[in-house]
Amino acid sequence: MIELRKDPITARWVIINDSRDFQFDLDENTGDDSLCPFCLGKERLIPEPIACYDQKGNKIDKYSNKWQVKVIPNNKPILTIEGSILRKAEGIYDKMKGVGAHEILIESPKHLVNDMKADDFVASILAAQDRINDLKNDLRFEYILVFKNHGKTAGSTISHPHFQLVALPIIPKSVKEEMTISKRYYDFKERCLFCDIIDQEITFGTRIVMETSSFVAFVPFASRYPFETWILPKEHSEDFRNLKDKYKLEELAEISISVLRRLKKALGNMPYNLVVHSYPLKQERIPHYHWYIEIIPKITKFSGFEFGSGIYVNPTIPEESAKFLREAE
Amino acid sequence: MIELRKDPITARWVIINDSRDFQFDLDENTGDDSLCPFCLGKERLIPEPIACYDQKGNKIDKYSNKWQVKVIPNNKPILTIEGSILRKAEGIYDKMKGVGAHEILIESPKHLVNDMKADDFVASILAAQDRINDLKNDLRFEYILVFKNHGKTAGSTISHPHFQLVALPIIPKSVKEEMTISKRYYDFKERCLFCDIIDQEITFGTRIVMETSSFVAFVPFASRYPFETWILPKEHSEDFRNLKDKYKLEELAEISISVLRRLKKALGNMPYNLVVHSYPLKQERIPHYHWYIEIIPKITKFSGFEFGSGIYVNPTIPEESAKFLREAE
Repeated sequence: MIELRKDPITARWVIINDSRDFQFDLDENTGDDSLCPFCLGKERLIPEPIACYDQKGNKIDKYSNKWQVKVIPNNKPILTIEGSILRKAEGIYDKMKGVGAHEILIESPKHLVNDMKADDFVASILAAQDRINDLKNDLRFEYILVFKNHGKTAGSTISHPHFQLVALPIIPKSVKEEMTISKRYYDFKERCLFCDIIDQEITFGTRIVMETSSFVAFVPFASRYPFETWILPKEHSEDFRNLKDKYKLEELAEISISVLRRLKKALGNMPYNLVVHSYPLKQERIPHYHWYIEIIPKITKFSGFEFGSGIYVNPTIPEESAKFLREAE
Repeated sequence: MIELRKDPITARWVIINDSRDFQFDLDENTGDDSLCPFCLGKERLIPEPIACYDQKGNKIDKYSNKWQVKVIPNNKPILTIEGSILRKAEGIYDKMKGVGAHEILIESPKHLVNDMKADDFVASILAAQDRINDLKNDLRFEYILVFKNHGKTAGSTISHPHFQLVALPIIPKSVKEEMTISKRYYDFKERCLFCDIIDQEITFGTRIVMETSSFVAFVPFASRYPFETWILPKEHSEDFRNLKDKYKLEELAEISISVLRRLKKALGNMPYNLVVHSYPLKQERIPHYHWYIEIIPKITKFSGFEFGSGIYVNPTIPEESAKFLREAE
C-alpha cells in the first residue's frame, strides 16, 4: 500500500507505505566501498539511470561511464510514479493515492568524498535544477523537495554522497506555513521577510558564519538545533531554479562546502540533514518568498516535550555557535 | 541563558537554554538501581520535593517516606521559575524570558516497574491533576504539558518511571493548531471533531486496539509512526483535569497499562513518548476540543524528508498494526 492520508486534527498529510522495509543498507560506517551500489562500475546493482551529467553539469548519454552526477529512481520510493491521484473520502477522513517521484542524485562516481570540490558540487546543483525542470512538466506534482541525509541518525542508509528529490502531489504543510507567514509579513511591510532578516543579520554580525558577495550563511536567531545553519542568496529570489549565473553557482558551492567543513571542525563527522527550501511549482513569481538551504546537524534527541508542544529546546546559544563556526577556518 | 525565541518564518517558539549539558544520566539500560536518584532512600541526590502522594493519590507530607508518587523540580529545568516574562523585540525578532516550571513526577518508589498496577497509575494521574491545579494559579502560565519519555532514543536519561510536567508562558504551536482546526470543524458541523472520529473508529472497528465502557484506544488513520496509539474518553471533555470519577480513573489506568503491554508484545521494550493533549489553562470551557493521550513508539528515524516537508513516512499500515495490538492480549 502506498497512500497519502490526512490527519483531520492537524491537517497534516502522512505517507503510508509498507513496501520500504528492505532498502540499500550495505556500507554505512565501514568505509568499505566494495558493496556500495552507487560507485562507478556497480551499475548492475541499481535501477536504470534517469539521467547522467558531466563535470560541468551538462546532460550526457545516460549509459555513459564518464558521469560526474548520475540520477536513478529510488528502488524503494516513498511515493509511486504510476497512476492518477484519486482524492477520496473514507468517512470523515481524506486520502489519495501515493503518487509522486523519488529520485537519487549520486554526487560523484567516487565513494569517499572528504574534500568535495566546488566544481563537482556545481554539477550536482545543475543536475538537481535539470531534474526539477523535467519533473515540473508532470502536472500531477505541486512541490519538489530536494534534500540530503548524511549518517544513520539522519536517516541515511548509504554513505556514498547523494541527494534525494521527492516530487509531491501536494504542497507540504511546512512549505505552506512559510508561504503564509512570509505573505502576511509582505502584506504588512511591503518587503520580503527573508530580505529583512538577511539585512539585520549582516548588520548585527553576531550570528554570521560567513559571507560571499552573493550569499550569506548564518545560525538563525531561533535555531531549533545546535549549529543549525542557513545559507541564503542576498538578492531576492523565490526559486532555487532561477540560479543560473556561473559565478553565483560557484559561490553557492563554495559557501556550502565551507559551511559543511566548519561544521565538521565543530562536531566531527556528524550526521546531518540538508534541505533546499524553494517555492511551489505552480505558483506565480512572488515577492514574499525567498529560497534558502538549511543544514541541521542531528546531535540532539527529540523528546516528548518537542513532540507534544512543537517547541524545540536548543542547548546551545546561536551567537556562540556562530562565533565558533566563523572562527573555524 | 534561558530564553524563548520566535522564528519569524514559521512563528515557532524555541527554547534557548545552555544550562542543561549535565543531567542525571546514571542508570540507563543497566537495570542497576544503586545509582538511581529517584529510588526510595536516595533523597539526598535530588532537589527538595514539591509534593508527595499516597497510593490513593492523596497529598501527604512532602518529607514522608511513605510516598507512592513524589514530585520534584527538575534539577536542570528547560525553563526557569524566577522572574517575569518580559516580551521584547530584538530588531525584527521576538523573544521573552524563559519563564516556566519543569517538574518530575516519580511514579513509584520502586526502580523496576515491569508490571505497573492500575492503582499506582491512578495515583500518578491524580498527582498530575493536583500539580496542574496548583501551577494554574500562577498567571504567567498559559499551558501545561504532561509527557513521558521512555528509553534513550525517546529522550529519557533516567529509566526509573516518571512523568514530566512543563508549565509554559505561551500556548504551544501544535496545541494552537489543534484548537484552530477543531474549532473550524465545529463551526462547520456543530459537532466535536474528536467525537466524530471516535464514533467512526468504533463503527469501522479496523483500527481499534481496545475499548472499555468510557475509553477507546485506536491506531489513528493517518499515523505518523508505526504502532502510534491514541487513548480518548468516549464522552466529550476538553480537559484532562475534569476526570474525577473513581471508576473512570481506574478504567483510564487499565486501558493505558494494557496498551503499553500490547505495544511491548509487538515491539519489545521499545523507546516511546507519551503525551497528554489537553486544552489551554485560561480558555473558557469549549465544545470543540477533546483531550487525549498519544503514545508514540520511537522505532523509526526522522530524515531530511520529514524535516523539510513535515510529511511523515510510516512504513506500517495502521489497520495491520491495530490488528496486531488487538490480538496481542
